[in-house]
Amino acid sequence: MNMITAPTLLLDADRARRNIHRMAAKIQGTPVSLRPHFKTHQSQQVGRWFRDAGVQAITVSSMAMAEYFAADGWTDITLAVPVNLREIDRINRLARKIKLNLLVDSKAAVDKLADHLDQPTDIWIKIDVGYHRCGIMWYKTEQVVDLADQITNAEKLNFIGILTHAGHTYHQPGPEEVQRIHDEAVLRLIDLKKDLLDSGIESCAVSIGDTPGCSVSDKFPGVDEIRPGNFVFYDLMQLRLGVCNPQEVAVGVVCPVIGIYPKRGEIIVHCGAVHLSKEGLKLNNTTTVFGLLVPVTDEGWGIPDQSAAVISLSQEHGIVRLPAEMINKVELGSLVTILPVHSCLTANLFDKYQTLDGKMISKMQSK
Amino acid sequence: MNMITAPTLLLDADRARRNIHRMAAKIQGTPVSLRPHFKTHQSQQVGRWFRDAGVQAITVSSMAMAEYFAADGWTDITLAVPVNLREIDRINRLARKIKLNLLVDSKAAVDKLADHLDQPTDIWIKIDVGYHRCGIMWYKTEQVVDLADQITNAEKLNFIGILTHAGHTYHQPGPEEVQRIHDEAVLRLIDLKKDLLDSGIESCAVSIGDTPGCSVSDKFPGVDEIRPGNFVFYDLMQLRLGVCNPQEVAVGVVCPVIGIYPKRGEIIVHCGAVHLSKEGLKLNNTTTVFGLLVPVTDEGWGIPDQSAAVISLSQEHGIVRLPAEMINKVELGSLVTILPVHSCLTANLFDKYQTLDGKMISKMQSK
Repeated sequence: MNMITAPTLLLDADRARRNIHRMAAKIQGTPVSLRPHFKTHQSQQVGRWFRDAGVQAITVSSMAMAEYFAADGWTDITLAVPVNLREIDRINRLARKIKLNLLVDSKAAVDKLADHLDQPTDIWIKIDVGYHRCGIMWYKTEQVVDLADQITNAEKLNFIGILTHAGHTYHQPGPEEVQRIHDEAVLRLIDLKKDLLDSGIESCAVSIGDTPGCSVSDKFPGVDEIRPGNFVFYDLMQLRLGVCNPQEVAVGVVCPVIGIYPKRGEIIVHCGAVHLSKEGLKLNNTTTVFGLLVPVTDEGWGIPDQSAAVISLSQEHGIVRLPAEMINKVELGSLVTILPVHSCLTANLFDKYQTLDGKMISKMQSK
Repeated sequence: MNMITAPTLLLDADRARRNIHRMAAKIQGTPVSLRPHFKTHQSQQVGRWFRDAGVQAITVSSMAMAEYFAADGWTDITLAVPVNLREIDRINRLARKIKLNLLVDSKAAVDKLADHLDQPTDIWIKIDVGYHRCGIMWYKTEQVVDLADQITNAEKLNFIGILTHAGHTYHQPGPEEVQRIHDEAVLRLIDLKKDLLDSGIESCAVSIGDTPGCSVSDKFPGVDEIRPGNFVFYDLMQLRLGVCNPQEVAVGVVCPVIGIYPKRGEIIVHCGAVHLSKEGLKLNNTTTVFGLLVPVTDEGWGIPDQSAAVISLSQEHGIVRLPAEMINKVELGSLVTILPVHSCLTANLFDKYQTLDGKMISKMQSK
């Protein structure tokens, strides 16, 4: 820690491993499998911690990520974004080496895949259970049945099931509402599956995945796989939702203090939008913050302090509002640690992690 | 263009070169020098276009950038962030090779620099003219005089002048107000310089730099150097301010359409917060947008369409709201081009540029 001179993405590896094992334990001894989303950490080395916990299949959100993790021995990867039809050649190249599963929500996509995929491929139909990003609305049974039939009838395509991301869990006020949205999403998929089976479709898996929903739930009846990602690190957004506790947040940005302005009650740190990202979070429905300071010891960091908030970010500078008693203890050139609002976006901005004991962990470079 | 399969940062090199020459022309034949901020493009190759326009000295916002541009032959670099005292060794290493100019706004920083710098170094005092990020308030004459004296009396340090970033130009409603803030900032520095000279300080340069202020002004009387950066690319933020025109925006993100939802009036593109950044912009003081679509021909892109806006971003997905007549023309797998809200942050997220004629331009990699 004391050797750090510039903004550094610090990773508490023990916390991350505990987060992985906690999620893996939920599905142990059940028919549910954990297919974690690796977009959060984007690191082969962190990926191996999941393998240590028994994980065998993963989720990614770009072909670059799929290739990067395939190169580290992952052989069952779901690309959980509606398939980008311009990448068919790239998909075919990777699908010759590993099992690459794709996502569709339209006949146009299935037509193109049926014509151009050269490997037998599992195809998920993306369902919109209320988030309104991608997918067919959950109640459009006929449309889903038709699409499943179209997939089944295509030579190289195998209809595997229905998949959703109930991302509207992120907009809830607390864990009870998250649980309600999660339960509702699962029910909608289970009802739709029943309709699909009734219509003559032979089998249909159910896949769901968002960190808030999977964090508040202990069991996943009726679900075949869960795909949370952010839980490996958590962050202020998840803390605000009440789906993790402060001791579970596993990444922070360590950065030097470059300005102290006691009259304004502010300090300036070398840590800007190119380190934390501009993802903001409304605390108490008033101020938007971009990070919170935490006290740090050699054993890691403690509880973030709502009165010590990053209130503004430019490209390389962050403005931190501090109470007078804290500002008087800060020295120019000292280090502070900031918990990010959204760990996925913060991790994406760094090219490596540093662990608490000073080890470097590499990440995917080009995107 | 047609070969693009994944989100790509497109650069209209002719527009960028014209932007550079337009700014360089403003100071030609005057005693003002242009010391552009290179944080926007972070590219040695783009940097050479500035050299072609007669630029000999630059501004950066991190030691990593200073080292990267020094490696391409830049020998006069100002690190325009209050000096990070943890980086003294790194500063000394680079300052042995080039002229590296530093920024301070406190006695504590000058003390440390006086004790540890091993090369004669030009030191600017950072002045706060109303932006309230870093610097000594412009009316604290005595404090500035004391600091200038302290610098002058330190063996290795040379007081070069007073420097500001009037970043509050970004919060103005239009170009007239930008001009007013710019003029006020210049006046505040000139008055302060007069006080410094009256107090016995031998000489004092005046440095100012923000793209809005430097874009609306044609002349810079009383100013020794200007340090704008964003003008090389411009973006929606500058367009909204009215300090550039649509034909001057030189970067856009080209991305594939992966979902079409006519009933919602929305399409989904593979272009998310890891491509555009989460910098939002309120258009007409109502909706926050993260980018606007522009029509593209082989000659480049046209005027952005306020009715075709990126209204939501997740990590890899963008939701674009489109009028019905446009949505009916979009095909799955087609490409759209998005102008970014803040080109500095968007460029920071990509590892290279692609020019309109398909050439790759590399950027700084590690931060």
